[in-house]
Amino acid sequence: MFSHVIPSFLKASSLPLLCMIGSLSLFAEVSFQPERISPAYRETAESLIRTALSSGHGFERLAEMCDRFGPRFSGSSNLEQAIDWVLGEMEKDGFSSVRGESVPVPRWVRGSESLTFLHPREKRCAMLGLGGSVGTGPDGISAEVMVVESFEALQQGAAHAKGKIVLFNAPFTDYGTTVVFRVRGAVEAAKVGAVASLIRSVGPFSMQTPHTGMMSYEDGVPRIPHAAITSEDAMMMARMQQRGETPHVRLYMEAHSLNEGQSRNVVADIVGAEQPDEIVLVSGHIDSWDVGQGAMDDGGGCLAMWEAARLILQTGLKPRRTIRVVLWTNEENGMAGVRTYRDRHMEALEDHVLALESDAGTFKPSGFSFTGSEKAMPYLEAIGGLLGPIQSGRLKWGAGVSDIMHLVPHGVPVMGLDVDRTRYFWYHHTAADTIDKLDQDEFNLCVAASAVMMWVVADMPLRLPR
Amino acid sequence: MFSHVIPSFLKASSLPLLCMIGSLSLFAEVSFQPERISPAYRETAESLIRTALSSGHGFERLAEMCDRFGPRFSGSSNLEQAIDWVLGEMEKDGFSSVRGESVPVPRWVRGSESLTFLHPREKRCAMLGLGGSVGTGPDGISAEVMVVESFEALQQGAAHAKGKIVLFNAPFTDYGTTVVFRVRGAVEAAKVGAVASLIRSVGPFSMQTPHTGMMSYEDGVPRIPHAAITSEDAMMMARMQQRGETPHVRLYMEAHSLNEGQSRNVVADIVGAEQPDEIVLVSGHIDSWDVGQGAMDDGGGCLAMWEAARLILQTGLKPRRTIRVVLWTNEENGMAGVRTYRDRHMEALEDHVLALESDAGTFKPSGFSFTGSEKAMPYLEAIGGLLGPIQSGRLKWGAGVSDIMHLVPHGVPVMGLDVDRTRYFWYHHTAADTIDKLDQDEFNLCVAASAVMMWVVADMPLRLPR
Repeated sequence: MFSHVIPSFLKASSLPLLCMIGSLSLFAEVSFQPERISPAYRETAESLIRTALSSGHGFERLAEMCDRFGPRFSGSSNLEQAIDWVLGEMEKDGFSSVRGESVPVPRWVRGSESLTFLHPREKRCAMLGLGGSVGTGPDGISAEVMVVESFEALQQGAAHAKGKIVLFNAPFTDYGTTVVFRVRGAVEAAKVGAVASLIRSVGPFSMQTPHTGMMSYEDGVPRIPHAAITSEDAMMMARMQQRGETPHVRLYMEAHSLNEGQSRNVVADIVGAEQPDEIVLVSGHIDSWDVGQGAMDDGGGCLAMWEAARLILQTGLKPRRTIRVVLWTNEENGMAGVRTYRDRHMEALEDHVLALESDAGTFKPSGFSFTGSEKAMPYLEAIGGLLGPIQSGRLKWGAGVSDIMHLVPHGVPVMGLDVDRTRYFWYHHTAADTIDKLDQDEFNLCVAASAVMMWVVADMPLRLPR
Repeated sequence: MFSHVIPSFLKASSLPLLCMIGSLSLFAEVSFQPERISPAYRETAESLIRTALSSGHGFERLAEMCDRFGPRFSGSSNLEQAIDWVLGEMEKDGFSSVRGESVPVPRWVRGSESLTFLHPREKRCAMLGLGGSVGTGPDGISAEVMVVESFEALQQGAAHAKGKIVLFNAPFTDYGTTVVFRVRGAVEAAKVGAVASLIRSVGPFSMQTPHTGMMSYEDGVPRIPHAAITSEDAMMMARMQQRGETPHVRLYMEAHSLNEGQSRNVVADIVGAEQPDEIVLVSGHIDSWDVGQGAMDDGGGCLAMWEAARLILQTGLKPRRTIRVVLWTNEENGMAGVRTYRDRHMEALEDHVLALESDAGTFKPSGFSFTGSEKAMPYLEAIGGLLGPIQSGRLKWGAGVSDIMHLVPHGVPVMGLDVDRTRYFWYHHTAADTIDKLDQDEFNLCVAASAVMMWVVADMPLRLPR
């Protein structure tokens, strides 16, 4: 990690003096080395960590937002009401320039939907239509089901797919591998003449739990309805087919798309005392799918970043650079939020020193993943060293955070908060993504780690190297 | 456990000779000591274990029953069709006297049901009416919700309960402690003037998973509708109440009871070669709740016992006493199956040497719990010793198996198969009780342990002491 060679004038005994001088302005930017981070910021870091871990404020706010507004889907009034509430609360907190920056967003409406298993026996199946899917029309679609495990198996059985509902019964391995059936399933099924397609929900554990998420169509290929069923029902249909039976179902979906709607990115600043144009952007996405409460994905990420910044405000710390909280809209089904921000703030992106996002649930944090310059890493590792006492400071290469990846082509260094993801895909895009799945102590650790990271990057004499 | 002092004539080298003599008839019953079990039965036990662990037959049959018939609720045609199928399969297996012994059973019908959260925001809640509940009438019941954590809290707030829907938001501690709100909740709520009652589902983990189960009324207390909601929604309403909000819901339930119906206990014998009137009864319950597949509760128990007996048949072993497979009906909502059996076979109960049941899921087995004579325990422990290689032979005092406990007052020694119950109450009485929650290898261990236990108790020269 980082070296503990500390210049003698920065030893602990001289810290009170340093604090009095303020803002560490005695360092020439060019000479500020990673080794100086620990002595300069250890005391503030410890204080931020202590404050974060002893507070119930952020988690209670998260619970209130989840309970009061429910799921926050792009284009819904729930989302806009939640945004209004967030803006009001941020004003009360004392953030500067609190605003909703308007974003045109797609609007997809689920409507009523059902899947009824007709043969060999009757049963209503839990299901969720996939985001962007077309509906079935008022009569629904009744057809035999053809179960396949892969696109290759579909090709091999292509001659039998015409007029069928194709079910992709792919067991969860990892998200990237398994999600292809959600994204491309309708296209591949339609190409071989299927009238609709189903997927086994993308998740490693199920209690009759369907998972929604985005799907896509392709020009020139018929658009057929596409929905997720539970792992239990998908496996059952596969077993039936293995026994020589042909499952028969009726799918009904009112799903449809409306004209573009309006949403907003939430933006709020702690204005930098010395370089206000240099921005450390900290973020989560405020929208969610239209089921559950979007507590884990990504209410928790929003509240953790917001709360971390609020603690800095509350503590009276004045960062050298601006800390900007951004709660992106429309991450789930379009990425319109980050794209609109990027286009609106294009010229300022070169002064976006770092973009940080939490979008993997506020479970127990382990550290941060970073995509940016190798010259930056020693500084980040040194900041990570300040998080040693809460085991949350491990730095890794390669941020994989969906919104802020859109800023990478414009030179912005980006960073994701890493957490224990053991159960993330149990709840992902389901009705079970509710506040009770998160733990206040783990949430507070996320707040603590994020507060220390954003504070030091915003305040250290040297701008994080690109 | 048991002593390894083995008479020299029973050392391994003499086993082939013993097998040739057959049925161990050289032992005088009175002189058969527990120490003789290991040398006499180790070879057969090892063979039964090997056969059980290498077979896919029982688990495939369980999956087929689950998939083909779905839930098997008392009074439903699903259950009777499943019983017909079981009887046919048992005939094919070669069991003797395969029969369905008729049992009058209560019939409760769920009908359509829903819970809609109206205020502070609209939301359809997952719910399950509780077995035996009355319905709401065609207009449903719209009322404010009063959340309490206990009966004591209800008493303290009794003055405010009139006209409300009382929600018992009791977190799961253990089943016995928490289930009281399911059983007695409607009575206690009605006593203080509530118009309906809800419980937080009885389970330690939820993915928006409601759990059904039996409830009760009391003469002289108004019968109000009683239903289970998910832990998520119960906790949400509790949080809202803590914030000073009053949740408002609409409950709709068509639940009602019909006239008594007919079901059957499944009974099939392996007739004893020497004492056919002495019976070792091995059992599970064939009925389930009306959701899911009743795979864990208790399809697995039925199939494990049936398969264990089938392996004995298949191996060509002829037990000294009769091994009787019984699949009880109506365990879930009445216990009519075991009661009818008890009354019909009252005179034979004194020759029921042991009743064994599996009703805790066919998870990894650890051994058996026993309620009976102290004189029997050394023999059972010695049989447990044969299960050492599969770590499934630990004997404990105190069987807690619901059906066969009804035979205890009539002197029948009873025994339950003990398993790892870590996840039992996750799935208990839910739509998620499906075959995929069970594991074929763990199921086979249950079969192996049960086969060895039933074989030795049925075959050893000494009748198990009462």
